[in-house]
Amino acid sequence: MTLDPQLISRFAAIVGERHALTAPEDIAPYVSEPRGLYGGVTPLVLRPANTEEVSRIMRLATETRTPIVPQGGNTGLVGGQMPDGSGTQVVVSLSRLNRIREIDLASNTATVEAGVVLQTLQEAAEEKGRLFPLALASQGSCEIGGNLSTNAGGIGALAYGTARDLCLGIEVVLPTGEVLDDLRKLKKDNTGYDLKDLFIGAEGTLGVITAAVVKLFPMPKGRELAWASVASPAKALELYQKATEIAGPSLTMFELMAQTPLDFVLRHMPETAYPLTEESPWHVLMEVSSARSAGDAREVMAILLSEAYEEGLISDATVAQNEGQRGKLLHLRESMSEAQKFEGGSIKHDISVPVVAIPEFLERAERAVQAVVPGARVACFGHMGDGNLHYNVSQPVGMDKAEYLRRYAAMNEAVYAIVQELGGSFSAEHGIGSLKREQLVATQPAVATELMRRIKAAFDPAGIMNPGKVI
Amino acid sequence: MTLDPQLISRFAAIVGERHALTAPEDIAPYVSEPRGLYGGVTPLVLRPANTEEVSRIMRLATETRTPIVPQGGNTGLVGGQMPDGSGTQVVVSLSRLNRIREIDLASNTATVEAGVVLQTLQEAAEEKGRLFPLALASQGSCEIGGNLSTNAGGIGALAYGTARDLCLGIEVVLPTGEVLDDLRKLKKDNTGYDLKDLFIGAEGTLGVITAAVVKLFPMPKGRELAWASVASPAKALELYQKATEIAGPSLTMFELMAQTPLDFVLRHMPETAYPLTEESPWHVLMEVSSARSAGDAREVMAILLSEAYEEGLISDATVAQNEGQRGKLLHLRESMSEAQKFEGGSIKHDISVPVVAIPEFLERAERAVQAVVPGARVACFGHMGDGNLHYNVSQPVGMDKAEYLRRYAAMNEAVYAIVQELGGSFSAEHGIGSLKREQLVATQPAVATELMRRIKAAFDPAGIMNPGKVI
Repeated sequence: MTLDPQLISRFAAIVGERHALTAPEDIAPYVSEPRGLYGGVTPLVLRPANTEEVSRIMRLATETRTPIVPQGGNTGLVGGQMPDGSGTQVVVSLSRLNRIREIDLASNTATVEAGVVLQTLQEAAEEKGRLFPLALASQGSCEIGGNLSTNAGGIGALAYGTARDLCLGIEVVLPTGEVLDDLRKLKKDNTGYDLKDLFIGAEGTLGVITAAVVKLFPMPKGRELAWASVASPAKALELYQKATEIAGPSLTMFELMAQTPLDFVLRHMPETAYPLTEESPWHVLMEVSSARSAGDAREVMAILLSEAYEEGLISDATVAQNEGQRGKLLHLRESMSEAQKFEGGSIKHDISVPVVAIPEFLERAERAVQAVVPGARVACFGHMGDGNLHYNVSQPVGMDKAEYLRRYAAMNEAVYAIVQELGGSFSAEHGIGSLKREQLVATQPAVATELMRRIKAAFDPAGIMNPGKVI
Repeated sequence: MTLDPQLISRFAAIVGERHALTAPEDIAPYVSEPRGLYGGVTPLVLRPANTEEVSRIMRLATETRTPIVPQGGNTGLVGGQMPDGSGTQVVVSLSRLNRIREIDLASNTATVEAGVVLQTLQEAAEEKGRLFPLALASQGSCEIGGNLSTNAGGIGALAYGTARDLCLGIEVVLPTGEVLDDLRKLKKDNTGYDLKDLFIGAEGTLGVITAAVVKLFPMPKGRELAWASVASPAKALELYQKATEIAGPSLTMFELMAQTPLDFVLRHMPETAYPLTEESPWHVLMEVSSARSAGDAREVMAILLSEAYEEGLISDATVAQNEGQRGKLLHLRESMSEAQKFEGGSIKHDISVPVVAIPEFLERAERAVQAVVPGARVACFGHMGDGNLHYNVSQPVGMDKAEYLRRYAAMNEAVYAIVQELGGSFSAEHGIGSLKREQLVATQPAVATELMRRIKAAFDPAGIMNPGKVI
């Protein structure tokens, strides 16, 4: 234990003994994550009940210069939610701040606390006939505060934007314990610097987001989800452009998947089946929504698929006929990350490039990957409409996992070099955390790094907010 | 002259004598604006040709501690683009940075310099079959750099967002002269703090935006514009909710206008005519766009109007049958600000409230206004779908203008008090400039002001960027 027991007691008194975890078995779930990639050490996990308790925690942390690591559902993929190995950092879990304070149907907004699980909000909105469009593989356990702190993306971002775009107002506890209450429901507000968007995506390094006002949308009256086979990424790009042209803002999903990650899903995930008859090297999952009627969505999807067939963009397709079929198609896509675990080591990249550069990226990256580790299996899938791919590379069959993972940095370097040449980003939606911190400093202009450092110093002069992350 | 002539020569040498204006008649257009509300004094207006020249200007400004006021099309309504009265501030006009560097049809982006006039970009996009949806009354002279620096809104914001939402990447010259080049075309990029959104809306107080990558959209295949009479703001709200329900993301404009500003337009603006036969206290201008076809847009608008008639939401309506009629309807709306000038003094408010609170706001504000100046004429119009109204109040007929304008502060106070109670904003889209700087500090939480001050100090430690604006 590396924190003074008296200090631990003072922190514990704020949240009550029951919600101040100090036993290793109680702490364990907060310092490890399912993939086992990140782990940390902490003598104390605090589970405050409300904003006031978070504020008191931060006041004490400032007074005693105690580093704080805010944590939501602990599903982050870059280690942003993990304490380091020093045992001096206190984890503050926001999970008990889990009230949906209000759903305002007239304004189409929800005011939610940071610890509300994403799926809980989705379901609460749906019960009221509204759509909260943020949707991720981890939606059953990730929390809104974490979604905002990492500016989460996911499959709904194409039409509705990322977490940033869905947020109208926030409540933040600053390192000093002061509370910035900006829980407004306004679509337009040009009063000074955009503080909200600084906290969003800052991964808890500038303050602790404790609540937010988010946008809701009328539930579409029709949603058509189709799975289609395409011969190549170039065909997928043509299909995407056609879908945009025909459906416009009604195109609400456009995912690209290689055959490899689909094979992994079919091999390892129970109750999955390939939805088409013939194999294909690439697949697209796309959705058309209509505000007007189910028939309208059907009609648009029918026009899209028929033109796509005629022009040779797709070779086969199926449309979900009911909620059950819809769920199965979505499950195939959402299980791809999970299924990879069963195929040994995986070297991951969460990249974005301009949408039109995706075919070129895929072609060049495949060659680069094979040069680094011959036989490596590219299990790529992602949000093509956003230019965002999860370019994951599984080890060659039979290779030693540890030996493969020793090539992590070399593989990253090869892939990121291509991303940079194409004007892309090496972290499209997962963030920086501890994983990509050096990468950020190494690749972004020095002047950007300097500005970020100054912002960090201006907001957190004592350096107690999630140290070692982002910057 | 309050600047050292030698210093003026050094600045002039950067842009060339021809583009360094020192004669009062050359300077005049840069230190006054059409309404005559703001005026300033400067011994020097610099008209750089490119980013490199802007960079050299800022380097010299930092070296010599010379305050710089960046200026676009000089159409701002809060004085943000004006030097103060000291004669020590140098105006830097971005108007010669007017190249459209690229229109990328495949990525649906345009890379434009700060001085490109908004309408020029709209037209360049349209020539290529694309829509750049930012649209303002001043679009014939306002410039993209100014649009971004003020996060401009306008009539297209309902469906496409404000300038902030339309911007993917920026190029900024910092006070030191360093250039931050972030001209990327990415929809997703989670690499560190959101610097872009700090510069957007900062009104030139953190740096000089010199170029940007903005989003383009496929030109809708059909656009239907309708003018409808409504009995009250409450009916207008119902109509808005119905329009949202029926058209969803295809609802691309929803403007509310009182009869008073329409009367002003019909009285003072040439070649204008009331589009309907019967008078009405309130009017709505709304647009439905379709990505699919002209017929589709017509059908949706027809359904919307027929249901609205049946349910008694509207009493009369007309739909533009061609581009000429469309232009006339838009002109009625866009002339409302201009027409007010002919009716004597006007006390203005650019407010936003949650959309559902608009009827309550209008009712309470009318009473408050009459209590401050009995007989004052509320000439309100604005972007109802964004909760954003231009709540302008013209003087009573026959009252002395100066006497009326002496009530400016009292009127503001009365209106803003209601806005604040409704959780609204006293500057929805025009910004803070010098006009609302004290208002900002007086009404926002002290902790927000403190954070903004720290950001300002972090980015502009010498305090040379547009001093006296925003913060």
